[in-house]
Formats: sequence, structure tokens, C-alpha cells
Amino acid sequence: MLVLEEAVKCLLCHTNAITETELIPLLTSTNRILAAPLLAMVDQPPFPRSPLDGYAVRGQDTEGAGKDFPKRLKVIGTVYAGEVFTGTVREKEAVRITTGAPIPEGADTVIRQEDTDYGREEVKIYRGSPPYENYCCQGEDYRKGDILLESGMRMDGIGIALAASLGKELIEVYRKPKVAVISTGDELIQPGASLPPGKIYDANRHLISGRLMDFGLMPFASLHGRDDVQGMAEMIYKFLGEADLIVTTGGVSVGEKDIMHQVLSLLPAEKLFWRVEVKPGTPTLAAVLGNTLLICLSGNPFAAAANFELLVRPVLGKMTRDKRLEVKRCRAVMENDFIKPKGTRRFLRGYTEDGKVWVSAGNHASGTLMAMVGSNCLIEISKEQAGAGKGDEVWVYLR
Amino acid sequence: MLVLEEAVKCLLCHTNAITETELIPLLTSTNRILAAPLLAMVDQPPFPRSPLDGYAVRGQDTEGAGKDFPKRLKVIGTVYAGEVFTGTVREKEAVRITTGAPIPEGADTVIRQEDTDYGREEVKIYRGSPPYENYCCQGEDYRKGDILLESGMRMDGIGIALAASLGKELIEVYRKPKVAVISTGDELIQPGASLPPGKIYDANRHLISGRLMDFGLMPFASLHGRDDVQGMAEMIYKFLGEADLIVTTGGVSVGEKDIMHQVLSLLPAEKLFWRVEVKPGTPTLAAVLGNTLLICLSGNPFAAAANFELLVRPVLGKMTRDKRLEVKRCRAVMENDFIKPKGTRRFLRGYTEDGKVWVSAGNHASGTLMAMVGSNCLIEISKEQAGAGKGDEVWVYLR
Repeated sequence: MLVLEEAVKCLLCHTNAITETELIPLLTSTNRILAAPLLAMVDQPPFPRSPLDGYAVRGQDTEGAGKDFPKRLKVIGTVYAGEVFTGTVREKEAVRITTGAPIPEGADTVIRQEDTDYGREEVKIYRGSPPYENYCCQGEDYRKGDILLESGMRMDGIGIALAASLGKELIEVYRKPKVAVISTGDELIQPGASLPPGKIYDANRHLISGRLMDFGLMPFASLHGRDDVQGMAEMIYKFLGEADLIVTTGGVSVGEKDIMHQVLSLLPAEKLFWRVEVKPGTPTLAAVLGNTLLICLSGNPFAAAANFELLVRPVLGKMTRDKRLEVKRCRAVMENDFIKPKGTRRFLRGYTEDGKVWVSAGNHASGTLMAMVGSNCLIEISKEQAGAGKGDEVWVYLR
Repeated sequence: MLVLEEAVKCLLCHTNAITETELIPLLTSTNRILAAPLLAMVDQPPFPRSPLDGYAVRGQDTEGAGKDFPKRLKVIGTVYAGEVFTGTVREKEAVRITTGAPIPEGADTVIRQEDTDYGREEVKIYRGSPPYENYCCQGEDYRKGDILLESGMRMDGIGIALAASLGKELIEVYRKPKVAVISTGDELIQPGASLPPGKIYDANRHLISGRLMDFGLMPFASLHGRDDVQGMAEMIYKFLGEADLIVTTGGVSVGEKDIMHQVLSLLPAEKLFWRVEVKPGTPTLAAVLGNTLLICLSGNPFAAAANFELLVRPVLGKMTRDKRLEVKRCRAVMENDFIKPKGTRRFLRGYTEDGKVWVSAGNHASGTLMAMVGSNCLIEISKEQAGAGKGDEVWVYLR
């Protein structure tokens, strides 16, 4: 039986960060991980531009201008944003200019239109502007050769805007891991079908698939398998080399219907471990099959949920390089009591906020789902403790 | 000119929470908002079930059992998970049972197989179990009639698992708001095309669209419009009654090319406000056109980004009922200095952590994008202050 940290280490040893990349449309890249640095191929802005609507001038020509002593300049043209004025602004000349337009050759500042008489052939300047006062330099945002986003960064609205500003339509990101989810058990019926006596609906497949979706990872496949050794081995075999990770639920304990041990023996699998020193979910089983990692969780819904956070999540974090998936653990002070026998390292459903943590109300049996609603963390009660009481400090693992 | 809070209030007065709902496949419901409570139609589990592999018995028949004084029971059958044993367990009888199987009539606990001789016709019980010790009651997770999730809750992996456990294949959620994004300006070229002199790539459309995507809201449309009053009016007109919200960038100031004022005059629009007392982004313009709200942001990228957070985000929060979209504001202590003139309420790019906040390095001009990279908040410097220095407490608006 491995301690949790050893089990995680062992899984991570057999996990590769995805190296394959794909070029995807920029507007679909939210939350994807950049596979190459975003390098500026041009200066931004690509030319000196006007920050306002007014007149592009030589600053020195406006020195000393006032309401009662306007400077008069000859208007030699107009340049709108998106256009280029091909002439040069010389002594006592001005070009009418709009926000965002390139500042013409020769001009070194822009007079706000409110500080002029809006003249068309000749303009009166009522307030001077020193050179470069109202002047956005070429490259003031970024310069050719700058790295705008590092490889490994997660794309968001700002990253998308930056890449767009470079003219990128497509962006290179790491592909997402392909994760197959398989629930096992003859007692499971799929939602939508009617429920015969003795059966229950398949919550586990939805729990694991739904948790993947919480991380933006649509399952590569989400299936249910019967308690049939040969059939299950074939189902898993089909995913070898296709899926990066297969997560199953059920069939890992020591009973007659705990078929996953036999399933493994039919497959080209190297068993990594069986049984981890945690409760719930002790009988977790893990194996590696070529490039595909297989993690078999307990069929108890909370055991599956807890071990997904503790064991599967770090694997997904390494595969995706997405920092949001890394396990986040912190200390918190218990606000209520929980009693358990010594000798097992127990994980409980809890809610944490502001350094405090509450054990979730309701039934903590590992077969129940309801106590997970509104829970935002797992509370750890160590092997040595016989529970924890109000005021005790514990580790919490954030969801 | 409105103060920010008045502008938000005015927008929210003209914003309706979406009431239309849609039935969607359960596994696509991540982050969607439940439009009806999730009501249990059955008990969960639907029958008393075994928490382990062993023998279902009457507890009283095993009282006093020990390694040296086994109790002998007649094995009258086997029940696997997913099956039903139709007989009744009577005095000194046992039924072989697997985890998750219904506990047969008459039995009131289960003996762990490790505490037996695994007998097939007769089983020796080495350790007794009182009634209901190893017995998951019908309805121990939830009972028929319980409300499992309230209407208005955001779906996640746990919610998906709960709905699946009820047999739901489809789930009723509020539809997402339809948001159209339109960038304006003749200077804008779309990514992928080559860049003629005087032009820049269209970052704003991608910034606003990308930010919507950060919130899981794929834009209903994401378009660029030229500086053409008639054309822009027609573009907006097409979305009336179709989009819930139209967000534009550019053309809202006082220049010759600030066409949005004229565009509004061609449309059946009720102007809500023009100019908000914030910097950057003062000239924000808002109008309502039937059931469609129109918010016209400044064309400066940071002005558009900041006012998206301050003005558009609350509107999206109300429309979607998604609490993650509500504006989150807190106090933080400045770790560096920023100087500004008095008289304007200024919002800066910053990074906050642990109650501290740093003004982002780099160029704070409202036309620049780079200083937004790595920023996770807006820092507010009030109208009355001439900046803020290390140690000063300020408001920060979390992204």
C-alpha cells in the first residue's frame, strides 16, 4: 500500500507533458496553453500616431500660443485614421488629423482641436504643445523582437487581443490530453433509460466526465462497461495509443465482481500500484500501457471524486501544463468537529473560506453524492488523529 | 457626465435577466445556470444496499460469533450488484452479496467476506455484526421530494453527477445571452490579411470577443464595421431583437470620425448616457433599442478593456445570473507609487495578491495592450487623489 504522495509521484513519473501542438483559430484559443512564444514581428503601433483629434504640427511653431495670441498655421492637408499623409509638415504648417492616424513626417506633436478654431485652410492655435507631448511613439506598446507572451502561458481575452494586434489568425497551442472515461458495473443504467429493480443510474461516469469538463477537457470517450473481463479488456485495448489517460470507476476491490485485476492481466499493462493509504478510495489501481496511463478509481462516488482530485488531477496538470489544474493545498482552521478512528488518513468534503473550513453537513458515506454539493475542498484528517475539532488546523485541498 | 455607479445602475435598469430556457444534454451543461430546481423523483439509493462484499444476514443470528466460535448459516443464494434476490432471509440463513447489491428482504446487515470462510452452501461467520451496521439505507443519499440543486445554481461535475443519478439525460438551463461585438474604424485590418501603411490590426474586436469567451460566452457575432454612418446603422439594425447586447468599440468621442452619435440618430434608439466620469474611457455611450442594449466603448484598447469590466460585466452578470461575472471589488494596499493629476477618477492595470496590489509595469497609455498581460485587477485612484503611494489603501476590481 502506497502513501498518497508516493502514488502521485509514481503517476507523475509515468506522465508526459503533451508535446504535440496544433494551430487553432485565435478566437477559439481561450484557456489553451501556448506552445511557442508570441514574438512581435513589428513595432506596435507600427508608426507614430495621434492620440487625439486635432492638428499635427511642429511643436516649436506653437510655442507661446494663447487665446489672445493665437499662432496661425497653414493647413496643408488632412489625414484620417487608416490613411497616410505623404507630404511633410514644414515650418508654420499643420495637417488636420484624427485619433489613431499616422503623424505626418515633420510634425512632432498634435494640437487638440478644442485648442484651435477648427480652421480648414488656416488654423488658429490657442494653446501650444511642446514636441512629443501629444505623440504616441512607434513601438510604444511593444517593439519588433519583443516576446509578448511566453510559451506555456494560458490564453485569455488579453492574449487573444495581443495575438490579433500582431495579425495572427491562427495560434499554436499544445493539444489537449485525450482522456477516456469508463464506468464499470452491471448495476449501472444510463440516464434516459428506465430503471429496473436492483439497478442505479450511472453517476460515476458523469462525475468524472463532468469534472473533466470543469477543466475544459471534453472526454475523448465516456463509456460504460459491464462486469465482463474480456469485454472490458477489449474496450480498454481499443484506446491504447489513442488516449493519453483512461480513468475507470468500479471493480478495483477484492470481491468476485472486482474484475479490473483480471482485466489488467489480459492487457499489455505494467501495474504501477494497487491500494493507496487514503480513505475513501483505498483500492485505487494504476497501470501504464505503452503511452497510455490507466487509473482505476473506486466505484463509490465520493471515493471516485476524492481520488480524482488527489491522483488524477496532478496527472492532468502535468499533461496540460495548465497551472489551474495543479493541486492547491493550504492550511485552514476547523469550524466544526469530525470524529474518525485513528489509523486511516481520511479525506472529507468541506467548505473553506478566509482560512476557515467547515465539514460539509449531511451523510459522509463514500457512496453519497449530496454532501459534495457546495463543497469546495477536501479536508485531510491525518492517520495519527482520531478526528479534528473546532480550532484545529488542518490541510485542505482546494477544488 | 455620469459617475460610474450611476452609469452601472442605469444599464442594469435596462437589463433583463434571461428568462428563456433550453433543454440541453447533461454532459454539455458545465457552467450553465439551472433554470429549474433539480427535484428527486426517487430515493437514492432506491433500495437498501450492501456497502461491501460478503453475506447478507439477520444481525441477531451472528451475535457472539468469534474466530473460535463461528456461527454457521445456510447460504440460500447469491445476489450481485444490479440483480435482485427475490426470496427472504430467515433465521440462520445468509445470502452471498456484492457491493452495491440490494440487501434481500429479512436481512439487516452484511458480514464482510474477510470475516467468514467464504462458504458456498454453509458459511462460517467469525465476527458478528449488529443490525444496520453494514447497511446503506434506502434514501441515505437523498429522498424522493428533496430538492438537490436550487434553480439558479451553476452546473459543474458534481451537479452533473447528481442529475445523472436521477436518470436525467437532458437538463433545463437558461439560454446564454446573445452578445454581438462590433469594432469600428477604417484603420483596422483583420488578422490574417496583410497590413497596408497607416493601418493596424483589429485588437479590440478580439479583446472584447476574447473576454466574452473567458466567461464562456461565445459571441453571437463578432464583426468589424467601417467608419460609415449608414453602413454601421444597418449592421446594428440587423441585430435588433436578435442580440441581447451589442458592444461596439471606437467612434464615441467628439471627432469628425466619431460616427456612433450619428449612427444612433438613424436607429430607433433611446440614448441612456454619453460620457462616464472615469479615465480611461470617458466617452462611453449607451443606448437601448427595444430589447437590445447597446454599449459603445472607446476605441483605445485599455479604455475598452477597463470599461468592459466596469460597465459591460455587470450587465452580463445580471443577464446570465452567473455569480462569477458579478464585479468583485476589495481593498488592497499599494506596493508601489502612481502619480496622476487630481480631478479624474482613474483606473490602472494592476496585480493583486494577499491584500497587496502592484501597479503593472510598462506603458499605461490607454492605447497599449502589453501592460494588461499578467494584470489581474483594475486599481482605482479617486478623483480627489493626485495618485497613490506605497502603503495607501485603494479599491481594486478583480478580473
